[in-house]
Amino acid sequence: MNPKYKAFIPFFYLVWSDDLLSSKEFLTLQQFIDSREWLSNTEQELLLQEIAVLAPPSRKQVADWKAELEEVLEAETSITSLFDIALVLSKNDSDVKMARIAFIKLENDLGIIGEEAVSNFKKTSTSFTSSRQTSTGFAHEELTQILDGDQAPIIKKVKAVLSRPEFAYETSTDIAVYQEKVFEWCRILAKENLGNKAYPKQYGGGGNLADYFAIMETLSYHDLSLVIKFGVQFGLWGMSIQSLGTEKHYLKYLADIGSLKLPGCFAMTETHHGSNVKGLETTATYNHEMLSFTIHTPNANAQKEYIGNAAVHGQMATVFAKLIIDGVDYGVNAFLVPLRDTKGKVLKGIHIADCGPKMGLNGVDNGTIRFENVVIPKENMLDRFASVNEKGEFESPIPSDNRRFFTMLGTLVGGRIGIPRSALAAAKSGLTIAIKYSDQRRQFGPEGGSEVPILNYRMHQRRLLPHLAKTYAIHFALKYVTKRFIDKQESEMQEIEALAAGMKAYSTWSTRDVLQECREAIGGKAYLSENRIDALKNDTEIYTTFEGDNTVLMQLVAKNRLSEFRKAFGEMDAMGIVNYVYETAKTTLSEKNPIVTRNTDEDHLLDAAFHLSAFEYREKTILASAAKRIRKLIDGGLDPYDAFNVVQHQMIAVSEAYIERVVLGQFQLATEAVQDEKTKAVLVKLCQLYALSQIEKNKGWYLEDGYMEGVKTKAIRKLVNQLCWEIRQDAASLVDAFAIPKSCLAAPIVFQ
Amino acid sequence: MNPKYKAFIPFFYLVWSDDLLSSKEFLTLQQFIDSREWLSNTEQELLLQEIAVLAPPSRKQVADWKAELEEVLEAETSITSLFDIALVLSKNDSDVKMARIAFIKLENDLGIIGEEAVSNFKKTSTSFTSSRQTSTGFAHEELTQILDGDQAPIIKKVKAVLSRPEFAYETSTDIAVYQEKVFEWCRILAKENLGNKAYPKQYGGGGNLADYFAIMETLSYHDLSLVIKFGVQFGLWGMSIQSLGTEKHYLKYLADIGSLKLPGCFAMTETHHGSNVKGLETTATYNHEMLSFTIHTPNANAQKEYIGNAAVHGQMATVFAKLIIDGVDYGVNAFLVPLRDTKGKVLKGIHIADCGPKMGLNGVDNGTIRFENVVIPKENMLDRFASVNEKGEFESPIPSDNRRFFTMLGTLVGGRIGIPRSALAAAKSGLTIAIKYSDQRRQFGPEGGSEVPILNYRMHQRRLLPHLAKTYAIHFALKYVTKRFIDKQESEMQEIEALAAGMKAYSTWSTRDVLQECREAIGGKAYLSENRIDALKNDTEIYTTFEGDNTVLMQLVAKNRLSEFRKAFGEMDAMGIVNYVYETAKTTLSEKNPIVTRNTDEDHLLDAAFHLSAFEYREKTILASAAKRIRKLIDGGLDPYDAFNVVQHQMIAVSEAYIERVVLGQFQLATEAVQDEKTKAVLVKLCQLYALSQIEKNKGWYLEDGYMEGVKTKAIRKLVNQLCWEIRQDAASLVDAFAIPKSCLAAPIVFQ
Repeated sequence: MNPKYKAFIPFFYLVWSDDLLSSKEFLTLQQFIDSREWLSNTEQELLLQEIAVLAPPSRKQVADWKAELEEVLEAETSITSLFDIALVLSKNDSDVKMARIAFIKLENDLGIIGEEAVSNFKKTSTSFTSSRQTSTGFAHEELTQILDGDQAPIIKKVKAVLSRPEFAYETSTDIAVYQEKVFEWCRILAKENLGNKAYPKQYGGGGNLADYFAIMETLSYHDLSLVIKFGVQFGLWGMSIQSLGTEKHYLKYLADIGSLKLPGCFAMTETHHGSNVKGLETTATYNHEMLSFTIHTPNANAQKEYIGNAAVHGQMATVFAKLIIDGVDYGVNAFLVPLRDTKGKVLKGIHIADCGPKMGLNGVDNGTIRFENVVIPKENMLDRFASVNEKGEFESPIPSDNRRFFTMLGTLVGGRIGIPRSALAAAKSGLTIAIKYSDQRRQFGPEGGSEVPILNYRMHQRRLLPHLAKTYAIHFALKYVTKRFIDKQESEMQEIEALAAGMKAYSTWSTRDVLQECREAIGGKAYLSENRIDALKNDTEIYTTFEGDNTVLMQLVAKNRLSEFRKAFGEMDAMGIVNYVYETAKTTLSEKNPIVTRNTDEDHLLDAAFHLSAFEYREKTILASAAKRIRKLIDGGLDPYDAFNVVQHQMIAVSEAYIERVVLGQFQLATEAVQDEKTKAVLVKLCQLYALSQIEKNKGWYLEDGYMEGVKTKAIRKLVNQLCWEIRQDAASLVDAFAIPKSCLAAPIVFQ
Repeated sequence: MNPKYKAFIPFFYLVWSDDLLSSKEFLTLQQFIDSREWLSNTEQELLLQEIAVLAPPSRKQVADWKAELEEVLEAETSITSLFDIALVLSKNDSDVKMARIAFIKLENDLGIIGEEAVSNFKKTSTSFTSSRQTSTGFAHEELTQILDGDQAPIIKKVKAVLSRPEFAYETSTDIAVYQEKVFEWCRILAKENLGNKAYPKQYGGGGNLADYFAIMETLSYHDLSLVIKFGVQFGLWGMSIQSLGTEKHYLKYLADIGSLKLPGCFAMTETHHGSNVKGLETTATYNHEMLSFTIHTPNANAQKEYIGNAAVHGQMATVFAKLIIDGVDYGVNAFLVPLRDTKGKVLKGIHIADCGPKMGLNGVDNGTIRFENVVIPKENMLDRFASVNEKGEFESPIPSDNRRFFTMLGTLVGGRIGIPRSALAAAKSGLTIAIKYSDQRRQFGPEGGSEVPILNYRMHQRRLLPHLAKTYAIHFALKYVTKRFIDKQESEMQEIEALAAGMKAYSTWSTRDVLQECREAIGGKAYLSENRIDALKNDTEIYTTFEGDNTVLMQLVAKNRLSEFRKAFGEMDAMGIVNYVYETAKTTLSEKNPIVTRNTDEDHLLDAAFHLSAFEYREKTILASAAKRIRKLIDGGLDPYDAFNVVQHQMIAVSEAYIERVVLGQFQLATEAVQDEKTKAVLVKLCQLYALSQIEKNKGWYLEDGYMEGVKTKAIRKLVNQLCWEIRQDAASLVDAFAIPKSCLAAPIVFQ
């Protein structure tokens, strides 16, 4: 056959088979043929016949073309463009040879990449994407020890309990059956002395708060209804007595609460008052003669709502209500109110309704409670911070109602440590399932090669691995906050409350994002409830709301930061200090010069000190800038309430920058402390990935501020990609290090 | 009493009552008192007694202080600092007067803002945050007409049907009951001739594709299991026959499908092949003698999975399988395979299992199907694009197996319009519930004022209103893509497929984000299933995966864009053109000079032309940069498969920038076309909010590129806040304009 004809085979094949080419491209090829002067009219006609849209070649013809192309490629492996094939097929025809530029232009006009088209004819793959796989760069058992730390024994015990057959997940869709199962699980845990772990030893408890938090976190590998029910009973209910009550209450109740003989509730939230709990409307009116209180719900919207343990099991509740003595309102205080008798019958004056089906946590019996003039004895007031004396007068060591209430709330801050730790565990479960699955699931692949594990795709790595790094970061940060909480001094309470509130928001939002990404990264399989992402996601969905709405908490954290900032820089007048800090932060920092803002040196970009400086700089600058802005708005005549509203968006940034700096700092410290070199190496990479992916997320801010220039943020983006690529091979071991019991993970896509 | 003593009352009150002050601040105040030289020793001692940490004042004392402060403030409303109060209380004592600077410094040292502290004593509020409320700046019925357009009559009809009592939501937790109810609803819709709307009139259909899509969207205001079941039956199942079959199939099946006499399935996805459907393993082997095909599942992972209508109702399925004739594989084709008899009994060789409980859409009976040598007659091959001729030979007008398969898939692109429109409706439902609730729900407020609707909070506006703007934007963009699809010419198919794929991803991701934000913005109430966010969120969760995984679709869109880019700039050699476009785009644009990159003029920032230029610039630059990068990687020796993997992350940006430009363009065109001035005014604001909030989201890119400088992106952030504030008062009317039937919204938090 005419060698000139043969040169066109690659293009014939392409226009008939490529799914991105359309009728326009036939025209392009026709015009190309028409304008080749070195083709005779007959040759041109012959060629044009092959690409007549209305007279397609036979399937066999197309297959034959392909076979010819494949043959050339097998013989000449160095070929990279269609023109090269054309030349070989034409047996080095001189006209074809001369037309090289025209042929290359044709490739462009057709919108194809020669190399890509060529690679589609190859029968073997040389892709390095396909060859990426899980390796064992370090011993994950080592890392598990580091993660568990001093709590390793209790974690081990809880995992052993959870792995028993009686902890098989409940599959009944009957909510009543489910709730009984969860209650039964709590009983088993109580029997194992896991419920009373935090109560003082003299009242039959374990006297170990650190263990209690570790239990909460470890239980969260199992059904999350269990941990919430557990937390309501032993945490909210029991600890409200421990924190707000006195000796007489401890003696009377703590043992029975710890053994689950006395199931109870924490009844704070009302329908109309959730975030603004200071506005609660339930009343506790003191009766002088009877030495009692009357607990009453004044209107429908003052009913207690979402109360865990209320709908079915609770026999008593800590009820937050405004104390009224002789018509005077003494602010919100806490009272123990019996709800049911020991047989479960609801008592007179108590009206309980089930909250109905929820997005998740349906194993917890949330309910509403309305009180209709319920009388309780005087000693049922939890009287650590306030009491009614023998003369029927109000007494309190904290004279301000406002401050007393916030002091009371402050003692309950443990919940804001338990919840983020539970969220952390859920994120670990999700990541374990998603990463293990992505390491096995294959889809697409290079021509001539087999399909590739989806974890080898850069986008897939991008979706999961920064979340893995962040989850590790949060692990260490929560460990730190837990320790600070346990070792707390009175003078540190404000800081610790802010830390806990901020970490609660940061961790639960992170878990939300992690599980969303896991769901999508796994695809359809994650939509099937059996694979656990459903429950993990829907159960934790409310974590961003309960124990304090995240957005509200972040505003509180910011207010605390602003107050601390003002105290620290109080030597100058208001405007002066703000300007001072703001300006000096901007100019005196050694890193704020063109050599540094444009520094794309890899050693610099991977340097832990650079990361921490960048986080600290952001934290300080945002804080000072917010302080300055508020001052300016108020000086401009704005009502302070309005001024704070105007900057709400910025306040979130203040808190986030603060928390991120804390998290990075703790991750770095934990990494530095690791002895084993291999384990340390992979943690260092994870820590770098956390730092750089946060900087990348905030690059708009860094660029706006001038702390970095575009070349630097671009280099950081590339490094994030690179770190993901490197960490990919350790990813499976990194989730193995979470050491979550297989019976808890359960997902058949991975564990079948 | 000593007037000097009185000057300290504001500070006494503060240290005892403020919840952000701690023991450190007592010290600060003690030191302040200690170092006042104008106080005698006796006076100092007297003052220090009041702030002795171990001897707190009585609650009455604190209340009395507060009363004194309030009294001063009522008399002198212009007071803005604690010092001013101190001065009044001291009756203008000259020593106090002289100490002004010291007192102001004390305020700072205590970390408080004087104005804020003062405002806490006010008994009436002058806040403008509280006064913001819903107004009726335009007639929302007018806007409804614009949204509905030509489809208004069919939308009205569907809404009327959905509002009937028999469409009350099913509340049974028994999945079987639920699935029967959904099926029953479909029967009613079929009876109303809503199911066959898209089929040609000559086969008993309505011949109106535009109406069909409007029906899909409107049904999505109701239970989403209904719309998916509906879409499976009348869309996927019916249209697979309409698109891939020929006359004989239309005559035999379309009427029965449209009437729901013949429920069926679309069986494409297999366990091991979801995104990469070209790799399907099910076989259809031609039997020459019998003139039949044998459909077979060669291994467990080749079973059909997630198939809607399969588990319970389907009697037949369009099965995608590799056609094998005489041992030769002719690629994936479609075959009609009976599954059950008319009584619902599963036929021989068919093995069906239920997929089990899912995160959502449990009203749809998804199942797996395995074929065990199931024989079907030859005419059951859907033979529009390929057939077996009388000689038993393969025949096709499209010679390439690859291209034929993608052509077949291309005809099914309607699903990628139906799904994003369904997602859009779900977003509208979520926003209606969240915005209406936020307009009613009050929480917190200024001192002396009542609690404020949470929609007045800037952060809350920020959470919901940009989503509202984006939802409107997507509405108009989907209207445009629908029209393009209906009016399509052969030569436009590639573009329309890319548009549909991109919009599918963009809209479903947006709905995911919208519903997540609605859940959190509503708080605990949104966790209760009765308030609908649960179902909306969990039902649409899979939208980002089915009808094409969003991430995979975005890669396809990017590949299409890159191919178009190469075709358009094919005149120069590969490297040249890329450099050319890339560089010229960067420098020749008139807006790329310091005056423009720093322009913070409000008229400029709100200008529609500026918005579109910014979007177009981003689209072009990212595309050219991706093309350049791929070329560079391949020239550097990378396998093209690997090169595309390296840039996957950037490819998503290519597609997103393209789709966002299309969306903005369509929103702007739709806005310009509005006649009514009031309606137009509010749409213009929404369109500005969409544009600026996207620019804000992408500010990192704009800054990196140098298209904007920090001053400009900061000004944009402020404008986004301002637009949210302005749109807030029209927000309720803007969701009213969606005109969703109350019976569909149902949420008791809003509609009780």
